[in-house]
Formats: sequence, C-alpha cells, structure tokens
Amino acid sequence: MEDRDPATTEEYLQLHPADLADRLQRMPSDEAREVLIGLPRATAAAAISELEHEQSQELLAGFSPEQVTEFLGAMPSNEAADVAGDLSDEQREEALADLPPEKSAKVNALLRYPEDTAGGIMSDRFIALRSDQTILECQQTLRSLAETETPDVSYLYVTDGQKKFLGVISLRDLVFRRPERRIEDIMNRSAASIRVDADQEEIARQFEHYHYLGLPVLDFEGRLVGVLRANDVIEVAQDEATEDMQLMVGLSGEERALTPWHRSIRSRLPWLCVNLGTAFLAAAVVGIFESTIARWTVLAIFLPIVAGQGGNAGAQTLTVIIRDLALGELSPGDGRKALMKELLLGAVNGLAIGLIVGVVSYVWKGQAILGLVVGVAMLLNMVAAALSGVLIPFGLKAMKIDPALASSIFLTTVTDVAGFFFFLGLATMAMRWWGI
Amino acid sequence: MEDRDPATTEEYLQLHPADLADRLQRMPSDEAREVLIGLPRATAAAAISELEHEQSQELLAGFSPEQVTEFLGAMPSNEAADVAGDLSDEQREEALADLPPEKSAKVNALLRYPEDTAGGIMSDRFIALRSDQTILECQQTLRSLAETETPDVSYLYVTDGQKKFLGVISLRDLVFRRPERRIEDIMNRSAASIRVDADQEEIARQFEHYHYLGLPVLDFEGRLVGVLRANDVIEVAQDEATEDMQLMVGLSGEERALTPWHRSIRSRLPWLCVNLGTAFLAAAVVGIFESTIARWTVLAIFLPIVAGQGGNAGAQTLTVIIRDLALGELSPGDGRKALMKELLLGAVNGLAIGLIVGVVSYVWKGQAILGLVVGVAMLLNMVAAALSGVLIPFGLKAMKIDPALASSIFLTTVTDVAGFFFFLGLATMAMRWWGI
Repeated sequence: MEDRDPATTEEYLQLHPADLADRLQRMPSDEAREVLIGLPRATAAAAISELEHEQSQELLAGFSPEQVTEFLGAMPSNEAADVAGDLSDEQREEALADLPPEKSAKVNALLRYPEDTAGGIMSDRFIALRSDQTILECQQTLRSLAETETPDVSYLYVTDGQKKFLGVISLRDLVFRRPERRIEDIMNRSAASIRVDADQEEIARQFEHYHYLGLPVLDFEGRLVGVLRANDVIEVAQDEATEDMQLMVGLSGEERALTPWHRSIRSRLPWLCVNLGTAFLAAAVVGIFESTIARWTVLAIFLPIVAGQGGNAGAQTLTVIIRDLALGELSPGDGRKALMKELLLGAVNGLAIGLIVGVVSYVWKGQAILGLVVGVAMLLNMVAAALSGVLIPFGLKAMKIDPALASSIFLTTVTDVAGFFFFLGLATMAMRWWGI
Repeated sequence: MEDRDPATTEEYLQLHPADLADRLQRMPSDEAREVLIGLPRATAAAAISELEHEQSQELLAGFSPEQVTEFLGAMPSNEAADVAGDLSDEQREEALADLPPEKSAKVNALLRYPEDTAGGIMSDRFIALRSDQTILECQQTLRSLAETETPDVSYLYVTDGQKKFLGVISLRDLVFRRPERRIEDIMNRSAASIRVDADQEEIARQFEHYHYLGLPVLDFEGRLVGVLRANDVIEVAQDEATEDMQLMVGLSGEERALTPWHRSIRSRLPWLCVNLGTAFLAAAVVGIFESTIARWTVLAIFLPIVAGQGGNAGAQTLTVIIRDLALGELSPGDGRKALMKELLLGAVNGLAIGLIVGVVSYVWKGQAILGLVVGVAMLLNMVAAALSGVLIPFGLKAMKIDPALASSIFLTTVTDVAGFFFFLGLATMAMRWWGI
C-alpha cells in the first residue's frame, strides 16, 4: 500500500497550492491528513483553502480543534471564513474561539454573508486611503504595508473618516503625482461599486459586461467592506454556468464526476422520480388512445419520433433562453421578441421536419394518411416545444425560482404529453373520417 | 417612427460603451449607424468594439472604408483586430491599408492569431521593462508612458534585449525599492506564462485554477507578445460554458435569444435532421416488434416511459462528465473511476426506478408479468444510459471532437434504441414463456 503515493514532502512543497489540493482530493482522507500534518503550516493552509467544499469538510472533521485553529490562523480572513463555513457548528465555534480576537472578529464578520453573494466572495485584503490624506502620507502608509502584506492591487480605495467609500485612485497616480496634493483632489469619484448582498450571478454579469478588474464592495450604509477581484470572479462565472447546466437536468448544481456515489444518489434520484411521475402522465395520454393503437398498431412505431423530436427542438430553445437569462442578455422587454422568434422557428423547423417525417412514413409504410397524421402532429409538437422552451424558464423566473431548475424535465413533459395527444388524437380523427 | 428611440447624443455619451453597444444592438442597423456617426469618434469606436461579432459585422458593412478606418484607428490594436476580423476580406484590406503603418502592422500581426487562442484574446497594451535597466530608469519610462496611455496593470513584465520574457516585477517593488538597483536583481523569475497558441478553454482553466490576475503571452521563441488579464478571461469562461451547453443540444455555440431567426435555422435544423435519422433508427427497433405490440397493445403505453427515463438519467451523467472535462477536473486516469461510479449509480437508481415502475404498472394494469418486464427493462436501460453518458463524451474527446458536440442527441439515440430493445425484447420473451 505504501507505493500508492510516492510523493515526498519536498515534492509537495514544489506544487502550487491548487495542484497540491488536487492531489489531496484523490487520496483517502487519512492519508491526506498525514500529508497535511507533515507540511509547513502555511503550505497546508493554502492547500486546504483550495479544496472543494465537500473535501475540506471531510478532511477537517478528522483534525483536532487546535489543529483546525492553526490552519485557519495561517489563512487570510476571507479564506478562513470560507473554510470555517464548511465546518460543523460545534467544530467552527471551537476553532474560531481560539483564534486571536481580531482575526476571529474578522472571520465571524465574513461568515455572516451568504457564500453566493458579494460578501461571501469578496476579499477583505484591500488598501483604503483617507480622502484627506496627502499623497506623501499615503506613500508612507503603503511603504509600511508593503513589508507586512502585499495584496495584488492596481487600484487603491478612498474612504472618508467614517469608512464611507468615496472613490478610487491608481497606484500610478499615487506614485507620480506631486506629494503634497490631497487624495480627494485627484481620486476618481465616479468609480463603480457593488452592494454586499449582490448575487454572484449578477456579479459575474457585471464583471463580464464592464470588464472590471476589481470592484469595491459596500455595505448598506455605503461603507467599504471588501473588494472583488476579476480573478476570483472567473471561478464564480464557471460555477454559475455549471450550476445552470446541472439544474436543467435535475442535478444538485454542485456535483462533480468524482463526487461519492451516495451523495449523487441524493441529488439525482428525487428528480428521476419527479420525471417518472410526468412520464406516467404522458403514458396516461397514450392509455386514453389504447383502442386506437390496438386497431392501428403501426402508430406505436411513430409515437416516440413525434415526442422525441419535439423534445430535442424544445431543448434547443430552452438552452438558448436559459443561458441568455443567466448572462443578462435578455432584458424584460425582450421576452416577447424571443417568444415570437422561437414560435416562428418552431413553425419553420416543424414544417421542414414534419414534411420529411410525413414523406418517409408514407414511403416506409405505404399509408398516405399515416404520413399526413405524423407530419401534422410533428409540426404542432414543434410549435408546442418552442412555446414551452420560452415559457418554462420565464415562468420559473417570474416565480423567483432559478429558470434552469429541472427545466428540461418540465419541457419533456410538455413535448411528450402534447406530442402523444396531437399524434394519437389526429390518428383517431383520421380513422373516423376515413373509416380505417 | 421618430419616438422609437428617444435618446439624445448627450444621453448616449453618459452610457458605458458596453451599455451603448446593447442599445445599438436593439436598433435597426440604419438607425444604429446614424447614432454612431453623431457620436465623437472615440465613443463610437469604444461601443463598436463592445458589439457582438454578428452585429459589428452587419453595422460596419454599411460604412465606407474611410469611416471604418477612422473607427479602427480610434481603438486599441487588439480591439481593432477583433473588429477587423469580422469584416469581409475586401473591406478589411481597404480599412487597414489606410491606417498609420505602425498601427496597421500591429493589427495585422494580431489578426494572424485564431480568435479562440491566447493570441486572439490577449492585449498588446502592456509595459515591458528591460532587465538591465535600473529602477530609476524604469520609473522615468513609466512617468513618460503615464502621460500617453494607462493600461491598468499591477504587474510589469521584464524582457531581455531580444524581447525574450524573463520575469515580472510589481509596480510597488518598482516604486519602493532603492532607485539604483537593477530590475534583474529584484524581479520574480518564476512567473507563469502561457503560449500564444493556447486554447481559450485551457486559458480559462488555468486562470480559474491558479487565480491569475494576469498572464504574459509568449511566442514560440519565448518572446513576450501580449498579456491576458483576468477581466478578459471572464468573458472567455462565459463563452466556453455557453458553447458547451449549446453544442450538447445541437446549437451553433454562438446563438443568442435574439439572433435573427434565419441564422438560427441554419444551426438548428441540420441537427434536428440528424436527430430525426436516429429517431427512425429507434422506430425501426419498435418496428421489429410490431407483431408483439399488435398482440399486447398495453406495451405501447410503457414504451415512452422506459426510453424517456433512461434519457433523463443519461442526461444527468452526461452533464456532469462534459462539464468536468471542460473544467479540467477529470484527469485521464479518472475516466475509469467515473465510469465505475456512474455504472453503480445507474444500477442503484435503475433498481429504485425499476421497482417503482414495475409496481405501478402492475397496480395500474393488473398484470404482474407486465410489471416485471417494465421494471427489468428500466433497470437495464438506466445502466445503458450511465454507460453511454460516460463513453460518448470520452469517445468524442478521444476523436479530438468537442465532447459536448451533439452529445445529448447521441445519448438519446442510445437510450431510445436500448430502451425499446430491452423492453420489447423482454416482452416478446415473456409472451413466449408464459404463452400470453
């Protein structure tokens, strides 16, 4: 068993903390804990704050409160807060109680913000200058700070005596302007900022739209409480996209390929059961027409084509709408336009696909009426698919539910039910009409 | 018609270029062009470089070569290259020929890089210092640069006399270290960099993994040719996620809710036709068992349940795998582990869902054998769904095709064909065995 992981402490020390975290996540927890204990505290702490939530929770559960306190103490406050947020209430309280009071207060303050808001993502390592200071005074402040900590900043933030945010100043201005000038005379007062309760989807949207490199975070009284930096927002943008993709098909939004299977079951099975319920609904529609199928068995062959094709066309519409909603590219007034476009597309694609299906069915089975019924049902179902592909996400959004949530399950329900109903309904009418 | 857009030039000037571009994209092209002509050149140029590719192409096609040249001249080279890349060959050549020679050369150099690589995304606005300069000399360089242009940088890049990249130095070091020291003595030599031909998915992955704020871009000889900044990578990360979501369901990867419908048709209809082909394949499987259905019509009711449920379970697996592959969270050795996990999940979920379906079918139709057949077919199809949910994306990747491409169409084919085959095959066997 000893050759399972041949890396030595020296090799681990060469790794970037993010890569070290990747290695730890692939080891059994006991082994990962041993590796962490063997490393310098700062290295171990850096790696722990790079772990996925689940893994950091699992690993830290096996350490003593003293050890956890030491790790948290070696992290910047915002990372300590993220990691502490994953602990059990008891373990968190014990670990935070033993931190130096100032650090403990900072971490506790950050823990109050939900993790998917600006407050949960921001860093509290930023440099705030007072507006009434001179450039010379600020340069002295910076020199002294440079010796203790070095946040990578190109902007410095300016506040008044009550910590109210006033504007930003570039490091370059601070360095090359005349030393006796006051900050308030040269700072940029029209700098953007974001509220501490802003949702992470909104944050990603603003950073993408306005190409911000950093954004000051203000509390409800306009006081500067932290900064968001573009490099942290990349992860947020990735996570948001992952969440939307997963929610659409009934996953938790946080599942990974190597998430333990018993956790995966908990997120997947409930939605599969919901889906089963809707599938029985669709089956009940087929059941209504059982006598039709009994007299015209060939219908059973075309049943899945009509429903499946509608499901696929609807998935295309749904995907475009959900993604545009998430990226903020669809303003409220655009909903009607999008609906009109999708209905037109549904009709045009429906005519094309309906025609092909109709002709192929006719040629295959030699029944003109069958071709007609399949073709028309296909057209109708594609229009229904377009309609539901737009209305489902907008409807969920109107109910303040994430537009992605289980949306493809709802969509398939519509396209199955509508598809079966149109197809078998038309077939029943055709049989009566033409006396088949 | 005049009240369609009541904004005045003054109002447009108040807007951020990104918001102005949003407005322009919602106007008819003629009107948007009039607005652009009425604005100061720099403002118009900034808005144009914020437009989506399609819109900038359409708007610029209506301007004269002289006007296009003026707009390009007012943009930074990398933005000019992005915009010029959208022009027709003829229009591009004319517009670039009239730019000042130095600018034209820069833009042409940037145009050589594919737009989804580091070269296509990078900015050529960066500050490179020579390693043999003293800090004092560098400060003088910076002071003179500060008057002409101000890229937002917190890092400065250091090269040798042949422009080979050597390391980075922070602006702060440059300002607060002793002026007579040489750059090469204080720079960070172990700074990361990326090759000019790196793919944008890889770029997003590295920025997310290592939290880079900026990354120098090197050509094949190790010369510094540009910089990537985290704020530009956010857009890349969003685009990559959008592309994957769209490719999965057979969209172009670049469609938006308000993309003109005739363009949407071109990306959607071909995949719907492919899907139709696969649907006929599945229908052919049902066709094989037509006589079975003729004698036991109730099977037709359960057919879509078995297939649809498999499709949904498979979509869950597929989504997790594709996203993890895109984010680089699945290393090659993890493929087998992921497959084992998904097979286990498929079996467990399959047993659960199979049992429910079997019991409900039995209760609903009062036929125990029907319940058995539906339940077992469901279990088998869920396992097939898990298998294909892993193998399809890995297979596409092995063939150097984007793992997302049309993957959900392929998946549904498998779950339909397998579902129908298992269900009707078992039913046929059951009928023989029990003489139904």
